[in-house]
This record gives sequence, C-alpha cells and structure tokens, in this order.
Amino acid sequence: MRDVAIIGVGMNKWGELWQKSLRDIFVESALLAIEDAGVGHIDSMYVGCMTSGLFVGQEHLSSLLADYLGAGPIPSARVESACASGGLAVRMGFIDVASGMSDIVLVGGVEKMTDVGGDGATYALSTAADQEYEVYHGITFPGLYALMARSHMEKFGTTREQLSQVAVKNHENGSKNPLAQFPQKVTVEQVSKSIMIADPLTILDCSPITDGAACAILCPVEMAKKISKKKPSVKIIGSGNATDTIALHSRKDFTTLSATVKAAEAAYKMANVKPENVDLAEVHDCFTIAEIIITEDLGFFKKGEGGKATQSGMTAIGGKKPINTSGGLKSKGHPVGATGVGQVVEVVHQLRGEAKDRQVKDAKIGLTQNMGGSGGSAVVHIMQAM
Amino acid sequence: MRDVAIIGVGMNKWGELWQKSLRDIFVESALLAIEDAGVGHIDSMYVGCMTSGLFVGQEHLSSLLADYLGAGPIPSARVESACASGGLAVRMGFIDVASGMSDIVLVGGVEKMTDVGGDGATYALSTAADQEYEVYHGITFPGLYALMARSHMEKFGTTREQLSQVAVKNHENGSKNPLAQFPQKVTVEQVSKSIMIADPLTILDCSPITDGAACAILCPVEMAKKISKKKPSVKIIGSGNATDTIALHSRKDFTTLSATVKAAEAAYKMANVKPENVDLAEVHDCFTIAEIIITEDLGFFKKGEGGKATQSGMTAIGGKKPINTSGGLKSKGHPVGATGVGQVVEVVHQLRGEAKDRQVKDAKIGLTQNMGGSGGSAVVHIMQAM
Repeated sequence: MRDVAIIGVGMNKWGELWQKSLRDIFVESALLAIEDAGVGHIDSMYVGCMTSGLFVGQEHLSSLLADYLGAGPIPSARVESACASGGLAVRMGFIDVASGMSDIVLVGGVEKMTDVGGDGATYALSTAADQEYEVYHGITFPGLYALMARSHMEKFGTTREQLSQVAVKNHENGSKNPLAQFPQKVTVEQVSKSIMIADPLTILDCSPITDGAACAILCPVEMAKKISKKKPSVKIIGSGNATDTIALHSRKDFTTLSATVKAAEAAYKMANVKPENVDLAEVHDCFTIAEIIITEDLGFFKKGEGGKATQSGMTAIGGKKPINTSGGLKSKGHPVGATGVGQVVEVVHQLRGEAKDRQVKDAKIGLTQNMGGSGGSAVVHIMQAM
Repeated sequence: MRDVAIIGVGMNKWGELWQKSLRDIFVESALLAIEDAGVGHIDSMYVGCMTSGLFVGQEHLSSLLADYLGAGPIPSARVESACASGGLAVRMGFIDVASGMSDIVLVGGVEKMTDVGGDGATYALSTAADQEYEVYHGITFPGLYALMARSHMEKFGTTREQLSQVAVKNHENGSKNPLAQFPQKVTVEQVSKSIMIADPLTILDCSPITDGAACAILCPVEMAKKISKKKPSVKIIGSGNATDTIALHSRKDFTTLSATVKAAEAAYKMANVKPENVDLAEVHDCFTIAEIIITEDLGFFKKGEGGKATQSGMTAIGGKKPINTSGGLKSKGHPVGATGVGQVVEVVHQLRGEAKDRQVKDAKIGLTQNMGGSGGSAVVHIMQAM
C-alpha cells in the first residue's frame, strides 16, 4: 500500500443556506479544496452523503456532483454510513490512493438538511436507526442518546453540569471558527436550563440541523512532496472502520460505543500511535454525552472519567487533550454526510498551524472520529504533519 | 495492486417478495455466496443500494447488514450510484482487495422496491435523474429512454421490431433461469402491442420493479488458488467506472452513452482485452433500447447496428456474442441496487460452466456493464476463468 497525504482542504460556511442547493454547496467546498491543493485535475472522487433522497429527492450524487464540478467523466462514488458517511468517503479515497488505482482523489461530504419541511428532518435522520425495531416504536436520536446519558450518569456519576460543560467548551471553540453555524458562546446554566428534548438532554445538548459541505484532496505521499503548495503536508497514518449492532437494545452496555473502540484500535495499530501521542481530536459530539463516551472509548481518559476530564478543562484548547477545537458538531454544525470530512478539514488546519485563535500549540498528530446513528458504525483517522 | 478473484456468488430468487424484508433478502444472498466460497469469515463488506431511504425508510445499511449477517464489527460500507450501485460495490471490493487492506471481502447489492405504495416507486427511481432540471418538469425514466429510442430510430433506422426482439431474446434466456422474476416467454407481437408507456416504449420494453439481492466473495488471486472450493475461480481482469452529465438535455448525442464508453475503455485497457475477445456480456437493459445502445458502445457492434445484430440472432445464446444470458434486467428483474452484482453472479456461473440450459459454450471471458440513471454513471468489469 502506498502512503497517502492530504494536500488540500476546503469547506463552505455551514448554516441554514436557503439560497443554495446541495450541488452549490458541494461545488463551493470542492473548489476551495482544489485551490488549496493547487492541483489542475482530479482522478476520481468519493462523496459521503447520508440521505439526499429523503432530504432533497436526489440520489445519484456520483454523477450529479462530478457533472456540476466539471470533473466528469472521472470515476465517482457516493458512500453512505449514516452520519459517518463523510469519514467513510475519506477512507474510500485513502484506499483508492493506497491501492495505486488513482493518484489525485477528491473526498467530500455534503448534506442539505433544511429544504425538508415539518417532521421531515427528524424522519430522515431516524433512518440511521433500526427502522423496524426502534423507529417504528417511536424513538428518535435524542431519545437513544438520552438512554446512554442516563446509563453513564447512573454507572459513573456523570453530572448534568459535566454534560453542559461539553457544550460550553465547544461553543467557546466555535466562537473562534468563522465557518461555524452557531458561534455564540453559552453558559453551563443556559445549557442545563434550555428546553428539555429527551431527559436529561436539553436542546443545547443536541447538535443542530445544518446545510454544509467539506472536501479534501488526497494523493500519494511521494507526489505530495513534489506538488504540495501548503507546508507541511499532512499524512494519513491510520484508518479504521468498524460496525456495531444498529439497534441500541441489542447491546450489553450503553456506556461504551464498541464500533468506535474497534475502529480506533485499527487506526492506532496502523499508525503505530498510542492515545497519549494524539495532540488533538475532532470527535462526533452529536449530543454532549457522545463526546464524553467517545473520549473514553478512544483511550484519552479512563472509562467513566470523560465528564470529569471535560469539567477540569483538559479537553479545552490549552488543555492536555484538546477536543473539537473547531466547535464540533454542537457549534460548527452537523450536516450529517459532511461532518466526517469537516473534522479532517479542522485537523489539517491545526497540523499546518493555520487555525489562528483556535491553534493548538505544537500540534503534530491529530485524530478524527466520525460515527453513524447511535454508534452502529464508526470511522477513525489519524493524521500527522509531514 | 494485487490480482483479485471471485471465489463465491449467491443470489436469492428475485420477484415481489412480500414476505421478506430488505435485511432478509440480503442475508439470504450473502449466506449463499459465503457457502459457495466456502469461507469461514469475511474481512470487510460493500453493499450497493440505490435508495433504501425512499423505498423502506432505512439508511445506514453498512451497520444494519453487517449486524444481521452476524459479520460485525467488520468494516462495512454502503455505496450508491443509482442503478449502478451494485457494480460500484464490486469495484470498491476490488480496490479494497487490490490495495492489500482486506483479504476476503463480501460485495453485494440489495433493493426492496415493492413495499412502497402509490407512485412511490416511480418517485424513488426518479431521484436518479436531475431532480431540479428533469424530474421537476415531469419526465421520468421511460420518457428519458424513449427520447433515446426515438433518436436512435431516426438516426440509424432502428425498428420497433428490433426493440421487441431484445425483450423476446431476454425473456427466452430468463425462461431458463430459475431465479428470474418474469421467466415467461414473449413474442415480438406481444412486446410491440403491449400497453404504451412512453412512445415508442411499451410496458414490455421496460424492466420491472423487483425485490432482490446478490452477493459475491472476493479475495486475492494467490489466496483463491489455495482456498477456492469451486473451480475454475474467476479473476477480475478489468474494472472501469466513469460518469457523464446526469441530465440528458446536457448531452450532444442521445444515441451513445459516454460513461459506458469511458468505463469500458478503462476496463479493456486494464484487462488488455478487446471487445472481440469477450465471450458473453451482461448489460444494463433497463429498457430494450438501452441494450441496443450499450452493445454498440461496448464495441461489440458498429454504432447504429445493435438493433440489426439483435434481430439476426447474434446476441442470443449460441450466437456470436451472447448478451444477457441470465434474462437481463427485463426478465430476471431489476432490484436497482442489486442488479450490478446479479450480473457478476451470472458471468461467474457462465465462466465456471454452471449455467446449465443457459450455458455459453467455451466461455472464458465475460463482461458486465451496469449503469446509473439515464447513463450518468457506468461501471464495467471484465472477468476471466482462471
């Protein structure tokens, strides 16, 4: 397998983009990534998108987006693993370049979520859960993550304040990110006392509905050394993907996400890196409790101590293990299919030292963890400045 | 890149499977493929599905199907390129094995199309076209392919009878396939005089709505030599994927499908094979006119002579270039995401000499051509008996 580098990234401003369509926001991000990389062509492309069929009545993004990017007739694929679709697109591009099949590959993610009315977005998102055994009985994602939160609170003493602290920290980070959907800062009290969605999760524990896209350009490391415009280039040193039962009720323990554990194991092994070597991570905080569980499952903190670590400031910029310096899904936004690529965009900016007010000092190794549904799938990547 | 073999295939009986769900039919086919290959585990999986979100309200098939197959926590991806999703899954598995990332990979396709009521299936399928510029104005797929048919008839003198002959030949082949949805034979007169759908295409020019799945097991050729139960194994010697404009109105010529031309060029080049070396092919006859255009675009016949070649019997079993020995989409059925893998199942059976009444004598090299929408994407594979 060839070593793979990321030589360019691009992302539009995420938010409620009423004036733009799915194809517009994808092309905008793709052109930013192509410009950042300074390449004149691409050999193939992979786009992560969860459910453009339900959100905007459009499948066949492989053809549509290659067409509107002006990249046809190149090979093009849309990949889907619910909210982990973007991370999966990065992995597919990684394998494509590693195999020798393609040299310069565009990987992207996109979701246009605000064009659907009524309960449409809640229904569309619910298709990431088990339709026949979970959704049919009325539960949706805030409910599923509330079960995890209750379980974690019961078992480890995680507190309401610790959940809020995740949101406070991520909005603080997002306030420094000009591309974030909700850059406003919030307080512990505001989060704890905002509208209850699924006890104990309030609306400020939940990530928002977002329109957005993000893209990156991959190529072999040997080629990156010659053509990369931005220095340092970033090497993908580990890639892991794993699955778990799609339904929460099939799991023995609600306080761990085993697909994340397995995907991280595979990525750490490939990268020959340990959790303590990771300088920063972007993780899938679709709900505040998710960030707490994930930071434990990635081996950053002992099981049950993620809440305390957050409260102590360890996960803040300037802390020992900065998490979601971009603002995370909470503040930056969560256009589901784009999120995994958006995470990579942030890590690349950090490793290149371009993150300005959000910059983590001496960042050399970054990790992304992207997750589908209630953790039925996960994709982990580890990147290093070259 | 490592050489890649197909060591097992499996497919359920396609049709209107009211008593089975999407997960049921996928697992049924996957277990048949695993049994055929005689393997005890798989390392990763790729599933092609066009729009389970719109057909059954279920995305996140990566997790769901790995879970229900009992294959978790392995890496798993769902890929989509409209009706070419199955072919794309085969290509992703091919790249995965070729790269060295995985050894034993399951590739599959599935679609459950009959659970949706009213105009639901027509709407779901229309999402393979350009939603904003084609579907919005009321055209659906029979209309798009009718435009191609009219253009081909006008330019090359292709006749109503030649279109019908495609259906007659494919139903004749399908009558010998115990897994076909519509194994009944039809006559030229029946096809020509059946209900008009979009002039000149009658209902018997159109492929049906189908529930079905198909799977194959891939591994490195060197491993296949040791572990393959069935002889000969089949080697994938060429893989091509290409795109075209998603909308028909953006093309200069309706009588050629350029994504198919480009995907075939790439596959022929990789395989170092010419069209005349191909002993049989499964092609994407979603409408009768599509088979005529595709057999020209694959280089089997000169442009404009596909209709005549069909009429002369050249594409029948026993003819010079047997096309769609399985019955094709027309007779075997067209569960959109599964179709591309179903094509591979047929070619593998042919190359292993297991096709019984449908067997092409001395078949050594087979080709599959799978296509999305009105040809906005295409995937071509070339396989050879080892």
